Amino acid sequence: MGAPTVTFFFEIASTYSYLSVMTADAEAEARGVSLIWRPFLLGPIFRAIHGVMDSPFNAQPEKGRYMWRDVERRATRLGLPFRRPSTFPRNPLLAARVSCGALREPSGKEVVRAIYRANFAEGRDIADEATLRAIVAEAGADPDRLLEAARSEAIKAELRANTEEARVLGIFGAPSFVVGEELYWGSDRLHDALDHALGV
Amino acid sequence: MGAPTVTFFFEIASTYSYLSVMTADAEAEARGVSLIWRPFLLGPIFRAIHGVMDSPFNAQPEKGRYMWRDVERRATRLGLPFRRPSTFPRNPLLAARVSCGALREPSGKEVVRAIYRANFAEGRDIADEATLRAIVAEAGADPDRLLEAARSEAIKAELRANTEEARVLGIFGAPSFVVGEELYWGSDRLHDALDHALGV
Repeated sequence: MGAPTVTFFFEIASTYSYLSVMTADAEAEARGVSLIWRPFLLGPIFRAIHGVMDSPFNAQPEKGRYMWRDVERRATRLGLPFRRPSTFPRNPLLAARVSCGALREPSGKEVVRAIYRANFAEGRDIADEATLRAIVAEAGADPDRLLEAARSEAIKAELRANTEEARVLGIFGAPSFVVGEELYWGSDRLHDALDHALGV
Repeated sequence: MGAPTVTFFFEIASTYSYLSVMTADAEAEARGVSLIWRPFLLGPIFRAIHGVMDSPFNAQPEKGRYMWRDVERRATRLGLPFRRPSTFPRNPLLAARVSCGALREPSGKEVVRAIYRANFAEGRDIADEATLRAIVAEAGADPDRLLEAARSEAIKAELRANTEEARVLGIFGAPSFVVGEELYWGSDRLHDALDHALGV
Protein backbone atom coordinates (compact mmCIF):
# COMPACT_ATOMS: atom_id res chain seq x y z
CA MET A 1 0.00 0.00 0.00
CA GLY A 2 1.20 3.49 -0.84
CA ALA A 3 0.56 6.71 1.04
CA PRO A 4 -3.06 7.78 1.63
CA THR A 5 -4.27 10.13 -1.10
CA VAL A 6 -6.55 13.14 -1.41
CA THR A 7 -7.74 14.31 -4.82
CA PHE A 8 -7.25 18.05 -5.20
CA PHE A 9 -9.60 19.71 -7.72
CA PHE A 10 -8.45 23.20 -8.68
CA GLU A 11 -9.60 25.84 -11.17
CA ILE A 12 -7.07 28.02 -12.94
CA ALA A 13 -9.03 31.27 -12.52
CA SER A 14 -10.05 30.63 -8.90
CA THR A 15 -8.57 32.85 -6.20
CA TYR A 16 -8.77 30.34 -3.36
CA SER A 17 -7.25 27.69 -5.65
CA TYR A 18 -4.18 29.95 -5.81
CA LEU A 19 -3.75 29.63 -2.05
CA SER A 20 -3.99 25.83 -2.23
CA VAL A 21 -1.80 25.37 -5.30
CA MET A 22 0.97 27.23 -3.48
CA THR A 23 0.66 25.55 -0.08
CA ALA A 24 -1.37 22.32 -0.11
CA ASP A 25 1.42 19.95 -1.12
CA ALA A 26 3.61 21.02 1.79
CA GLU A 27 0.73 20.58 4.25
CA ALA A 28 -0.15 17.14 2.84
CA GLU A 29 3.44 15.92 2.69
CA ALA A 30 4.03 16.94 6.29
CA ARG A 31 1.30 14.48 7.22
CA GLY A 32 2.36 11.72 4.84
CA VAL A 33 -0.54 12.19 2.44
CA SER A 34 -0.16 12.40 -1.32
CA LEU A 35 -2.27 14.90 -3.29
CA ILE A 36 -3.55 14.00 -6.76
CA TRP A 37 -3.79 17.25 -8.71
CA ARG A 38 -6.84 17.55 -11.00
CA PRO A 39 -7.41 20.75 -12.99
CA PHE A 40 -11.06 21.28 -13.96
CA LEU A 41 -13.29 24.07 -15.27
CA LEU A 42 -15.86 25.82 -13.09
CA GLY A 43 -17.57 27.59 -16.02
CA PRO A 44 -19.62 24.57 -17.19
CA ILE A 45 -20.51 23.76 -13.57
CA PHE A 46 -21.59 27.34 -12.82
CA ARG A 47 -23.65 27.30 -16.01
CA ALA A 48 -25.38 24.10 -14.89
CA ILE A 49 -26.04 25.47 -11.38
CA HIS A 50 -26.60 29.19 -11.86
CA GLY A 51 -27.44 29.38 -15.55
CA VAL A 52 -24.42 31.60 -16.21
CA MET A 53 -20.72 30.79 -16.59
CA ASP A 54 -19.55 33.88 -14.69
CA SER A 55 -18.21 33.72 -11.15
CA PRO A 56 -20.75 34.07 -8.32
CA PHE A 57 -18.27 36.62 -6.91
CA ASN A 58 -19.20 38.89 -9.81
CA ALA A 59 -22.92 38.13 -9.67
CA GLN A 60 -23.05 38.83 -5.90
CA PRO A 61 -21.12 42.04 -5.12
CA GLU A 62 -21.34 41.51 -1.33
CA LYS A 63 -19.68 38.12 -1.61
CA GLY A 64 -17.20 39.47 -4.15
CA ARG A 65 -16.09 42.33 -1.90
CA TYR A 66 -15.63 39.92 0.97
CA MET A 67 -13.69 37.44 -1.15
CA TRP A 68 -11.12 39.97 -2.38
CA ARG A 69 -10.41 41.18 1.14
CA ASP A 70 -10.39 37.64 2.52
CA VAL A 71 -8.02 36.24 -0.10
CA GLU A 72 -5.65 39.17 0.43
CA ARG A 73 -5.69 38.55 4.20
CA ARG A 74 -5.12 34.82 3.81
CA ALA A 75 -2.33 35.30 1.28
CA THR A 76 -0.61 37.63 3.74
CA ARG A 77 -0.88 35.04 6.51
CA LEU A 78 0.53 32.36 4.20
CA GLY A 79 3.38 34.63 3.11
CA LEU A 80 2.17 34.65 -0.51
CA PRO A 81 2.31 37.70 -2.77
CA PHE A 82 -1.12 38.75 -4.02
CA ARG A 83 -2.33 41.33 -6.53
CA ARG A 84 -5.94 41.45 -7.69
CA PRO A 85 -6.06 40.66 -11.43
CA SER A 86 -7.35 43.47 -13.65
CA THR A 87 -9.84 40.97 -15.16
CA PHE A 88 -11.63 38.32 -13.10
CA PRO A 89 -12.05 35.56 -13.83
CA ARG A 90 -9.45 35.15 -16.56
CA ASN A 91 -10.52 32.74 -19.30
CA PRO A 92 -8.91 29.56 -17.92
CA LEU A 93 -9.35 27.22 -20.89
CA LEU A 94 -5.92 27.27 -22.53
CA ALA A 95 -4.04 27.50 -19.22
CA ALA A 96 -6.08 24.58 -17.82
CA ARG A 97 -5.23 22.45 -20.86
CA VAL A 98 -1.54 23.42 -20.57
CA SER A 99 -1.73 22.41 -16.89
CA CYS A 100 -3.18 19.00 -17.77
CA GLY A 101 -0.27 18.38 -20.14
CA ALA A 102 2.31 19.80 -17.75
CA LEU A 103 1.18 17.51 -14.93
CA ARG A 104 2.19 14.50 -17.03
CA GLU A 105 5.80 15.62 -16.56
CA PRO A 106 7.90 15.93 -13.37
CA SER A 107 8.02 19.73 -13.63
CA GLY A 108 4.22 19.96 -13.90
CA LYS A 109 3.44 21.44 -10.52
CA GLU A 110 6.06 24.17 -11.06
CA VAL A 111 4.34 25.11 -14.32
CA VAL A 112 0.94 25.25 -12.62
CA ARG A 113 2.31 27.34 -9.77
CA ALA A 114 3.94 29.72 -12.26
CA ILE A 115 0.58 30.19 -14.02
CA TYR A 116 -1.16 31.02 -10.72
CA ARG A 117 1.65 33.35 -9.65
CA ALA A 118 1.42 35.18 -12.98
CA ASN A 119 -2.34 35.62 -12.60
CA PHE A 120 -2.61 36.42 -8.89
CA ALA A 121 0.71 38.04 -8.01
CA GLU A 122 2.20 39.47 -11.21
CA GLY A 123 -0.82 40.97 -12.97
CA ARG A 124 -0.20 39.03 -16.19
CA ASP A 125 -2.92 37.88 -18.59
CA ILE A 126 -2.74 34.09 -18.52
CA ALA A 127 -5.49 33.91 -21.18
CA ASP A 128 -3.02 35.38 -23.69
CA GLU A 129 -1.07 32.66 -25.50
CA ALA A 130 2.20 34.59 -25.84
CA THR A 131 2.11 35.40 -22.11
CA LEU A 132 1.34 31.78 -21.29
CA ARG A 133 4.28 30.61 -23.40
CA ALA A 134 6.61 32.95 -21.53
CA ILE A 135 5.30 31.69 -18.16
CA VAL A 136 5.84 28.06 -19.18
CA ALA A 137 9.38 28.80 -20.35
CA GLU A 138 10.20 30.66 -17.12
CA ALA A 139 9.04 27.58 -15.17
CA GLY A 140 11.61 25.50 -17.06
CA ALA A 141 9.23 23.62 -19.37
CA ASP A 142 8.98 23.60 -23.15
CA PRO A 143 6.25 25.97 -24.40
CA ASP A 144 6.14 24.45 -27.88
CA ARG A 145 5.53 20.96 -26.56
CA LEU A 146 3.00 22.01 -23.90
CA LEU A 147 1.03 24.26 -26.24
CA GLU A 148 0.93 21.54 -28.86
CA ALA A 149 -0.26 19.05 -26.23
CA ALA A 150 -2.87 21.57 -25.05
CA ARG A 151 -4.42 21.45 -28.54
CA SER A 152 -4.48 17.65 -28.71
CA GLU A 153 -7.73 15.72 -28.46
CA ALA A 154 -6.29 13.68 -25.59
CA ILE A 155 -5.70 16.70 -23.38
CA LYS A 156 -9.01 18.33 -24.30
CA ALA A 157 -10.76 15.09 -23.39
CA GLU A 158 -8.86 14.84 -20.09
CA LEU A 159 -9.95 18.32 -19.00
CA ARG A 160 -13.55 17.58 -20.01
CA ALA A 161 -13.42 14.31 -18.04
CA ASN A 162 -12.01 16.06 -14.95
CA THR A 163 -14.81 18.62 -15.15
CA GLU A 164 -17.47 15.97 -15.58
CA GLU A 165 -16.06 13.99 -12.67
CA ALA A 166 -16.12 17.13 -10.51
CA ARG A 167 -19.76 17.72 -11.42
CA VAL A 168 -20.73 14.13 -10.62
CA LEU A 169 -18.91 14.37 -7.28
CA GLY A 170 -21.11 17.36 -6.39
CA ILE A 171 -18.32 19.92 -6.66
CA PHE A 172 -19.65 23.48 -7.03
CA GLY A 173 -16.58 25.58 -6.20
CA ALA A 174 -12.80 25.46 -6.00
CA PRO A 175 -10.61 24.27 -4.56
CA SER A 176 -12.32 21.06 -3.52
CA PHE A 177 -10.74 18.03 -1.89
CA VAL A 178 -12.14 14.53 -2.29
CA VAL A 179 -11.46 11.48 -0.12
CA GLY A 180 -13.62 8.49 -1.06
CA GLU A 181 -17.22 9.69 -0.78
CA GLU A 182 -16.34 12.78 1.23
CA LEU A 183 -16.09 16.23 -0.34
CA TYR A 184 -14.39 19.21 1.30
CA TRP A 185 -14.82 22.67 -0.24
CA GLY A 186 -12.37 25.51 0.31
CA SER A 187 -8.66 26.08 0.78
CA ASP A 188 -9.06 26.05 4.55
CA ARG A 189 -10.64 22.58 4.57
CA LEU A 190 -7.59 20.62 3.44
CA HIS A 191 -6.88 19.88 7.09
CA ASP A 192 -10.20 18.03 7.46
CA ALA A 193 -9.61 16.12 4.22
CA LEU A 194 -6.18 15.01 5.44
CA ASP A 195 -7.67 13.92 8.76
CA HIS A 196 -10.24 11.86 6.92
CA ALA A 197 -7.65 10.31 4.60
CA LEU A 198 -5.61 9.34 7.67
CA GLY A 199 -8.63 8.01 9.55
CA VAL A 200 -8.12 10.60 12.32
CA MET B 1 -9.12 48.79 29.11
CA GLY B 2 -11.22 45.63 29.08
CA ALA B 3 -10.64 42.45 27.13
CA PRO B 4 -10.47 42.64 23.33
CA THR B 5 -13.85 41.98 21.75
CA VAL B 6 -15.24 40.31 18.64
CA THR B 7 -18.84 40.90 17.57
CA PHE B 8 -20.57 37.63 16.79
CA PHE B 9 -23.51 37.92 14.38
CA PHE B 10 -25.70 34.81 14.35
CA GLU B 11 -28.96 33.80 12.72
CA ILE B 12 -31.44 31.58 14.53
CA ALA B 13 -32.23 29.36 11.53
CA SER B 14 -28.62 29.05 10.34
CA THR B 15 -26.93 25.66 10.59
CA TYR B 16 -23.37 26.93 10.90
CA SER B 17 -24.54 29.44 13.53
CA TYR B 18 -25.53 26.42 15.63
CA LEU B 19 -21.91 25.24 15.66
CA SER B 20 -20.69 28.67 16.76
CA VAL B 21 -23.39 29.32 19.35
CA MET B 22 -22.40 26.07 21.05
CA THR B 23 -18.60 26.46 20.90
CA ALA B 24 -17.45 30.03 20.12
CA ASP B 25 -17.53 31.39 23.68
CA ALA B 26 -15.21 28.68 24.97
CA GLU B 27 -12.75 29.26 22.12
CA ALA B 28 -12.79 33.04 22.65
CA GLU B 29 -12.50 32.84 26.42
CA ALA B 30 -9.53 30.51 26.15
CA ARG B 31 -7.75 33.33 24.34
CA GLY B 32 -8.95 36.13 26.60
CA VAL B 33 -11.35 37.61 24.05
CA SER B 34 -14.93 38.58 24.82
CA LEU B 35 -17.67 37.86 22.25
CA ILE B 36 -20.55 40.30 21.83
CA TRP B 37 -23.57 38.24 20.75
CA ARG B 38 -25.79 39.88 18.12
CA PRO B 39 -28.82 38.02 16.74
CA PHE B 40 -29.89 39.24 13.29
CA LEU B 41 -32.12 38.11 10.42
CA LEU B 42 -30.72 36.79 7.15
CA GLY B 43 -34.08 36.89 5.32
CA PRO B 44 -34.06 40.64 4.61
CA ILE B 45 -30.38 40.43 3.58
CA PHE B 46 -30.99 37.48 1.25
CA ARG B 47 -33.93 39.36 -0.24
CA ALA B 48 -31.70 42.39 -0.91
CA ILE B 49 -28.93 40.23 -2.43
CA HIS B 50 -30.75 37.37 -4.18
CA GLY B 51 -34.25 38.78 -4.55
CA VAL B 52 -35.71 35.99 -2.40
CA MET B 53 -35.78 35.47 1.36
CA ASP B 54 -35.15 31.72 1.14
CA SER B 55 -31.81 30.16 2.00
CA PRO B 56 -29.30 29.81 -0.86
CA PHE B 57 -28.92 26.22 0.39
CA ASN B 58 -32.45 25.58 -0.87
CA ALA B 59 -32.02 27.56 -4.09
CA GLN B 60 -28.78 25.70 -4.95
CA PRO B 61 -29.23 21.98 -4.36
CA GLU B 62 -25.52 21.21 -4.89
CA LYS B 63 -24.54 23.64 -2.15
CA GLY B 64 -27.39 22.41 0.04
CA ARG B 65 -26.37 18.76 -0.21
CA TYR B 66 -22.82 19.70 0.66
CA MET B 67 -23.89 21.86 3.61
CA TRP B 68 -25.98 19.15 5.29
CA ARG B 69 -23.15 16.64 5.07
CA ASP B 70 -20.56 19.20 6.13
CA VAL B 71 -22.51 20.45 9.15
CA GLU B 72 -23.10 16.87 10.26
CA ARG B 73 -19.37 16.10 9.97
CA ARG B 74 -18.36 19.26 11.82
CA ALA B 75 -20.91 18.68 14.58
CA THR B 76 -19.48 15.19 15.07
CA ARG B 77 -15.95 16.58 15.33
CA LEU B 78 -17.12 19.17 17.87
CA GLY B 79 -19.00 16.53 19.87
CA LEU B 80 -22.36 18.20 19.23
CA PRO B 81 -25.59 16.31 18.61
CA PHE B 82 -27.12 17.07 15.23
CA ARG B 83 -30.38 16.14 13.53
CA ARG B 84 -31.50 17.76 10.28
CA PRO B 85 -34.68 19.80 10.94
CA SER B 86 -37.76 18.61 9.06
CA THR B 87 -38.24 22.20 7.81
CA PHE B 88 -35.35 24.42 6.79
CA PRO B 89 -35.03 27.22 7.43
CA ARG B 90 -37.42 27.54 10.36
CA ASN B 91 -39.08 30.96 10.54
CA PRO B 92 -36.64 32.64 12.95
CA LEU B 93 -38.53 35.85 13.73
CA LEU B 94 -40.08 35.10 17.12
CA ALA B 95 -37.09 33.09 18.37
CA ALA B 96 -34.72 35.87 17.29
CA ARG B 97 -36.77 38.43 19.22
CA VAL B 98 -36.86 36.14 22.25
CA SER B 99 -33.08 35.83 21.95
CA CYS B 100 -32.64 39.62 21.89
CA GLY B 101 -34.62 39.89 25.12
CA ALA B 102 -32.94 36.90 26.72
CA LEU B 103 -29.47 38.33 26.09
CA ARG B 104 -30.31 41.28 28.35
CA GLU B 105 -30.30 38.82 31.24
CA PRO B 106 -27.46 36.69 32.67
CA SER B 107 -29.11 33.45 31.51
CA GLY B 108 -29.43 34.75 27.95
CA LYS B 109 -26.83 32.58 26.28
CA GLU B 110 -28.34 29.45 27.82
CA VAL B 111 -31.71 30.39 26.33
CA VAL B 112 -30.17 30.94 22.90
CA ARG B 113 -28.27 27.64 23.09
CA ALA B 114 -31.47 25.84 24.11
CA ILE B 115 -33.27 27.27 21.05
CA TYR B 116 -30.51 26.06 18.72
CA ARG B 117 -30.38 22.65 20.38
CA ALA B 118 -34.15 22.30 19.98
CA ASN B 119 -33.93 23.17 16.27
CA PHE B 120 -30.77 21.31 15.28
CA ALA B 121 -30.58 18.38 17.69
CA GLU B 122 -34.08 17.71 18.99
CA GLY B 123 -36.26 18.12 15.90
CA ARG B 124 -38.54 20.68 17.57
CA ASP B 125 -40.33 23.49 15.75
CA ILE B 126 -38.89 26.68 17.20
CA ALA B 127 -41.28 28.75 15.07
CA ASP B 128 -44.16 27.44 17.17
CA GLU B 129 -44.87 29.68 20.17
CA ALA B 130 -45.88 26.93 22.59
CA THR B 131 -42.72 24.99 21.75
CA LEU B 132 -40.62 28.11 22.17
CA ARG B 133 -42.18 28.76 25.57
CA ALA B 134 -41.30 25.25 26.68
CA ILE B 135 -37.70 25.67 25.48
CA VAL B 136 -37.32 28.95 27.35
CA ALA B 137 -38.70 27.41 30.53
CA GLU B 138 -36.39 24.39 30.22
CA ALA B 139 -33.45 26.82 29.96
CA GLY B 140 -34.45 28.30 33.31
CA ALA B 141 -35.89 31.60 32.05
CA ASP B 142 -39.41 33.02 32.32
CA PRO B 143 -41.41 32.39 29.13
CA ASP B 144 -44.10 34.96 30.01
CA ARG B 145 -41.58 37.72 30.47
CA LEU B 146 -39.48 36.84 27.41
CA LEU B 147 -42.46 36.41 25.10
CA GLU B 148 -43.91 39.70 26.29
CA ALA B 149 -40.55 41.38 25.70
CA ALA B 150 -40.37 39.78 22.26
CA ARG B 151 -43.54 41.66 21.31
CA SER B 152 -42.32 45.01 22.59
CA GLU B 153 -41.36 47.79 20.18
CA ALA B 154 -37.96 48.04 21.86
CA ILE B 155 -37.01 44.44 21.07
CA LYS B 156 -38.45 44.57 17.57
CA ALA B 157 -36.39 47.72 16.94
CA GLU B 158 -33.26 46.09 18.35
CA LEU B 159 -33.50 43.11 15.99
CA ARG B 160 -34.14 45.43 13.05
CA ALA B 161 -31.13 47.53 14.03
CA ASN B 162 -28.89 44.44 14.33
CA THR B 163 -30.00 43.32 10.87
CA GLU B 164 -29.43 46.75 9.35
CA GLU B 165 -25.98 46.94 10.97
CA ALA B 166 -25.13 43.50 9.56
CA ARG B 167 -26.17 44.64 6.09
CA VAL B 168 -24.11 47.83 6.32
CA LEU B 169 -21.10 45.82 7.49
CA GLY B 170 -21.35 43.74 4.30
CA ILE B 171 -22.57 40.60 6.05
CA PHE B 172 -24.19 38.13 3.63
CA GLY B 173 -24.21 34.90 5.67
CA ALA B 174 -24.01 33.54 9.19
CA PRO B 175 -22.25 33.27 11.44
CA SER B 176 -20.09 36.33 10.83
CA PHE B 177 -17.47 37.80 13.13
CA VAL B 178 -16.55 41.48 13.09
CA VAL B 179 -13.42 43.12 14.48
CA GLY B 180 -13.20 46.83 13.62
CA GLU B 181 -13.35 47.01 9.82
CA GLU B 182 -12.61 43.33 9.31
CA LEU B 183 -15.35 40.79 8.57
CA TYR B 184 -14.92 37.02 8.91
CA TRP B 185 -17.62 34.72 7.52
CA GLY B 186 -18.15 31.18 8.74
CA SER B 187 -17.96 29.16 11.94
CA ASP B 188 -14.43 28.04 11.07
CA ARG B 189 -13.13 31.62 10.81
CA LEU B 190 -13.48 32.58 14.47
CA HIS B 191 -9.82 31.71 14.91
CA ASP B 192 -8.78 34.39 12.41
CA ALA B 193 -11.09 36.94 14.04
CA LEU B 194 -9.58 36.22 17.45
CA ASP B 195 -6.08 36.57 16.00
CA HIS B 196 -7.00 39.94 14.56
CA ALA B 197 -8.62 41.10 17.81
CA LEU B 198 -5.42 40.16 19.65
CA GLY B 199 -3.16 41.76 17.04
CA VAL B 200 -1.54 38.39 16.27
